[in-house]
Amino acid sequence: MERPIGVFDSGVGGLTVVKQLKKILPDERLVYFGDTARIPYGTKSKRLIRQFALEDALFLLQFDIKFLVVACNTASSGALPVLQERLEIPVVGVVEPGARAAAEKTRNKRIGVIGTSATIASSSYAKEIRKLMPEAEVLGQPCPLLVPLVEEGWLDGEVTVLTLKKYLKDLIEAGVDTIILGCTHYPLLEPTIRKIVGPQVALIDSGKETAKAVKRVLEEIKLVNRSSEKGKDLFFVSDSPEQFARIGSNFLGEALTNVERIDFDEFLIKNSSSPLLKNLEVLHED
Amino acid sequence: MERPIGVFDSGVGGLTVVKQLKKILPDERLVYFGDTARIPYGTKSKRLIRQFALEDALFLLQFDIKFLVVACNTASSGALPVLQERLEIPVVGVVEPGARAAAEKTRNKRIGVIGTSATIASSSYAKEIRKLMPEAEVLGQPCPLLVPLVEEGWLDGEVTVLTLKKYLKDLIEAGVDTIILGCTHYPLLEPTIRKIVGPQVALIDSGKETAKAVKRVLEEIKLVNRSSEKGKDLFFVSDSPEQFARIGSNFLGEALTNVERIDFDEFLIKNSSSPLLKNLEVLHED
Repeated sequence: MERPIGVFDSGVGGLTVVKQLKKILPDERLVYFGDTARIPYGTKSKRLIRQFALEDALFLLQFDIKFLVVACNTASSGALPVLQERLEIPVVGVVEPGARAAAEKTRNKRIGVIGTSATIASSSYAKEIRKLMPEAEVLGQPCPLLVPLVEEGWLDGEVTVLTLKKYLKDLIEAGVDTIILGCTHYPLLEPTIRKIVGPQVALIDSGKETAKAVKRVLEEIKLVNRSSEKGKDLFFVSDSPEQFARIGSNFLGEALTNVERIDFDEFLIKNSSSPLLKNLEVLHED
Repeated sequence: MERPIGVFDSGVGGLTVVKQLKKILPDERLVYFGDTARIPYGTKSKRLIRQFALEDALFLLQFDIKFLVVACNTASSGALPVLQERLEIPVVGVVEPGARAAAEKTRNKRIGVIGTSATIASSSYAKEIRKLMPEAEVLGQPCPLLVPLVEEGWLDGEVTVLTLKKYLKDLIEAGVDTIILGCTHYPLLEPTIRKIVGPQVALIDSGKETAKAVKRVLEEIKLVNRSSEKGKDLFFVSDSPEQFARIGSNFLGEALTNVERIDFDEFLIKNSSSPLLKNLEVLHED
């Protein structure tokens, strides 16, 4: 059996990326970790997000993963360089693939990004887009209520439409022709967002773009699974597996059966001397 | 200098309780811990909430506190018995005082409770009310979007009014004459809730009732501060102190200046052998 791909997120959101990975790389075995004990990441500080990301990666490294996917916009925005620096396996986040797709899609070079407060504050998408298209105008809009709305299951209806209208107002007025759904929860709101922005605005699902990027890199570095025995995908969470399985099925688009709870504090205490978690005091620096 | 009172919450919400404590017990020194690294508690499992509550208490015990106030409805609902069992100092939560006030206030014995998913699922308020008034009808309504709305600063306006109307509909139709604001964030929504329910429905602020209960117990057990030197209140958080100070000032009703960040993972690793954190596997039992 070949080595699996590790995927982590603060919770269920990353399952929208898993859904795309399973579609595009059906022969790969996945090990997923959702840090539901400390969800959400999007309202927390850069330093803490970096620390959490390293701890999540350390958990997945136990499974001898060959590749790490950061299926969380907040962690990709805040922690990708430190993960790439400290890990010996390739690490792909959701920001660069989403930024690339937006740069390819826009015609008027005016791109909107919606995401958590931490993602927008990091300007991660703007920085990536400007690498590819220095003249692009990138407008970020933090949307802290969208994750709770999705988790409450209010995917349309008056409250959600009004909230989205409020958040999208400035982007629409600025005439963006492309909007990046910069949070793994947002693809579930895509039909409602579509109704508000109309058919002319391109909506970029970073998760979908990330799955394509993972496939490309795996092929480049010749790590595509060649074993006929795929093995079972594994799902771990740091809080209740029942709640995760229930909400997660909507994100994954199929039933989630084998979710296991781990005691993350216990895991951290046991692994506190790992080199990956050394010098955390530097994590707030940019 | 006499021993301080310890207060903890998952984040800033508990500051509404601190505000009342400072009003009613101005001579007491307070040490506050807001677990902003793992906020919110209200969407998490009972087992995890109990573990977090014990860890938070352990942090405060370092300051030789004489009394512990659980200024969080979710933690009070899920973890009060285990805290009272494992700690040697008196522990007061926000549920019993709120339940008592509601039972005294209601005329038609029909009481509504709004709170986080975890608080409502625990039926903690219903259990406490029925101890005092077995014939009472208690209707619980989980309101997971209210904390994010308050933290976004949307205290009134269309989205908040519509969300509240949706959440309060069943309680109003059931004819409750008293509603318990069963989350420390909700007092900030009180004016908007008042407009929706009208002047006839009593709104119970559990934080206010808790401050009165703390005073009563301190007097009973003769632990009221008698030193003329009060000492400075201390505020600790497990994530960014700046964000806490900024949002927290609204909750406290005055500027917050001396907030200190602590690395909670580091604290847990150092204190992992504490007897308070032993046998955590029993925490999911009721």
